[in-house]
Amino acid sequence: MVDVAVVGAGQTKYGNHPLGLKGMWAEAASKAFSSVDGDFEPTSIDEAFIGTIAFGGAQLGNTAALLTEHSGMDGIPVRRVENACASSGFALRDAWMAIKSGQADVVVAGGIEKMNDLTPERKRYWLGVSGDTEWERLAGLTFPGTYALMARRYFHEFNADHDDLVHVSVKNHLHGSMNPAAHIQKEVSFEKAAGGFMVADPLTLYDCCPTSDGASCVVLAADHVARKLTDTPVWVNGSGAASDHLALHDRPSITQLKATQIASSRAYSMAGLTASGIDLAEVHDCFTIAEVLATEDLGFAKRGDGGVFAREREGQLNQGSTTVNASGGLKSKGHPLGATGTGQVVEVFKQLRGEVESGRQVRDAQTALTHNVGGSGATCAVHVFGRDRS
Amino acid sequence: MVDVAVVGAGQTKYGNHPLGLKGMWAEAASKAFSSVDGDFEPTSIDEAFIGTIAFGGAQLGNTAALLTEHSGMDGIPVRRVENACASSGFALRDAWMAIKSGQADVVVAGGIEKMNDLTPERKRYWLGVSGDTEWERLAGLTFPGTYALMARRYFHEFNADHDDLVHVSVKNHLHGSMNPAAHIQKEVSFEKAAGGFMVADPLTLYDCCPTSDGASCVVLAADHVARKLTDTPVWVNGSGAASDHLALHDRPSITQLKATQIASSRAYSMAGLTASGIDLAEVHDCFTIAEVLATEDLGFAKRGDGGVFAREREGQLNQGSTTVNASGGLKSKGHPLGATGTGQVVEVFKQLRGEVESGRQVRDAQTALTHNVGGSGATCAVHVFGRDRS
Repeated sequence: MVDVAVVGAGQTKYGNHPLGLKGMWAEAASKAFSSVDGDFEPTSIDEAFIGTIAFGGAQLGNTAALLTEHSGMDGIPVRRVENACASSGFALRDAWMAIKSGQADVVVAGGIEKMNDLTPERKRYWLGVSGDTEWERLAGLTFPGTYALMARRYFHEFNADHDDLVHVSVKNHLHGSMNPAAHIQKEVSFEKAAGGFMVADPLTLYDCCPTSDGASCVVLAADHVARKLTDTPVWVNGSGAASDHLALHDRPSITQLKATQIASSRAYSMAGLTASGIDLAEVHDCFTIAEVLATEDLGFAKRGDGGVFAREREGQLNQGSTTVNASGGLKSKGHPLGATGTGQVVEVFKQLRGEVESGRQVRDAQTALTHNVGGSGATCAVHVFGRDRS
Repeated sequence: MVDVAVVGAGQTKYGNHPLGLKGMWAEAASKAFSSVDGDFEPTSIDEAFIGTIAFGGAQLGNTAALLTEHSGMDGIPVRRVENACASSGFALRDAWMAIKSGQADVVVAGGIEKMNDLTPERKRYWLGVSGDTEWERLAGLTFPGTYALMARRYFHEFNADHDDLVHVSVKNHLHGSMNPAAHIQKEVSFEKAAGGFMVADPLTLYDCCPTSDGASCVVLAADHVARKLTDTPVWVNGSGAASDHLALHDRPSITQLKATQIASSRAYSMAGLTASGIDLAEVHDCFTIAEVLATEDLGFAKRGDGGVFAREREGQLNQGSTTVNASGGLKSKGHPLGATGTGQVVEVFKQLRGEVESGRQVRDAQTALTHNVGGSGATCAVHVFGRDRS
């Protein structure tokens, strides 16, 4: 069976982007193509998978073909993959499988979202429909409320409190302050993050990620082609994905994401390692509580110890055994929905090649993980990467 | 490399369906599961790909996970594939690659659309965005207009006329009149079809497919599993896909679909046969002119002879070497956008197993082709099937 490597990766800065959708995509794709070391032309791409949810309010359709024809990839088989905020995590998985299948040697996975063209009502709508509609959204429960319920229950079950979440926010803002691609590039003090205005009790402004514009693009290649394109491929050593009930009330527990547990267990097993072998992880911290749960579900902390993990800043850059969200995460780097999954891969690609801006590089990074969640855990894709093939 | 077979397939009746989205999907999935000969449980499904565009106006999100949790497939990796009207054709391709990749043994591909819950304005919107928006839709050119331009140009280039299109309509209505799953189950006389009210000159009502509700579901299995599930698998012997410019003015010719030509050429080559070896083809006749072009692009007729092929009824059931749209096609069976691609496979599955209602069975059908188009040719997926492995 063929092995798959990331040979190029690029993204726009996240935030309020001045360009439209085609321009943003062209920028991310162009950066990805030029990051490939060899004599790479987009005409050598066999197939593409592009994740997006709202696509700027869906005023443009047939989005995948629209984007490839405007980035030098016209004619190739391409499709849009939509799985709420896990769209490009699944685009990555599908691109990886396309190469594994032997049907394609060079495949693009990417994602894009233009949130700041939407009115506040449409933003709420496009975010809201990614959760459960019938039992949650129509009763007024949007994502901050959903994650607030998870946080309250977590506090109750594990004797944690809001301060634990504040530590996640402070850490991710610290990391993001050093990331020139981040939406929010500033540090936040513990006091300020603790005292932010209330969004959904107990979550304050500093517990919630921003809604960002952004595009990200990753070039994957089969092993025999990867060697020709770069001396420093980043190998996809494991891929796992799963789904779960959309609505919280259908799950036996709301302080763990079963989809994350299943997806990561598969990815670890394929890569032949466990959580302790991961040097850096980009996890889906749409809310700070989501990072606390993810550190447990992914195995970086024991069940119930995610709060302690946060409080002791074990995930902070080069502090513990696994740096969590060196990019700033969704909280500080930003969250352009469909672009987030492959945007995580852009970070991992640079980290594992030692190409990150000084100050933010994870020391001697050999292995990495990306964790991309849709809804409040209804879909999840986890990938494990390495400088070496496993 | 593993071979892939269709081992089960089912669909709802197309038309104005009384059930909601979850009910429609459950019906199609349940029929697909029960069509598997062996002791089949949906819990043995490893992964799923579900195509949909509007999903009833997108009031529900995270659609793929929502559907699998309501059809006995909870927990599996699932994603929505959206590629305009080729959504489930690409879902099929991605499901096929998932098995080829060795990552999954049993995979579901399906599609769904609930058009009749939409207001006329929203129907126009969701159909319209699948074409080019910036140059065509915003100038008032919706799909009937787009295909009317293609028809007028075709008449001009090849000395054809509207009568040729009428023959397509009459043939597909004849086939659909015998299909209990069809949206429109009635024959239409040549005179009536020729004199239908004008929609977009030269296309009349009888040149245009209806907008239907519908869901379709196909179960694919790796060869070593397929043998345990059925004695009569239908093999996927070839898959090809391609894209093209969205807007007509960007294409060198508007009387051929380059995406169809490329996709079918790849699928034929993989299956080791040519058009003359295909016993039945389900082609994407969203408008009658589209079937005329498809018969040429797929190689059933020479370039410029598609009108003659139609006029001489070579595609009529058991008349020529290839029966075209034995199901009634989009014109008469109906067109529930995202469900159409895998709906074509449901027909092919039954035909190749000799399980079609009496009167509509293609005699001694050994090989088949499905052709699913998005937009006015921006995306296309073609698959070749056989009773035997190629």
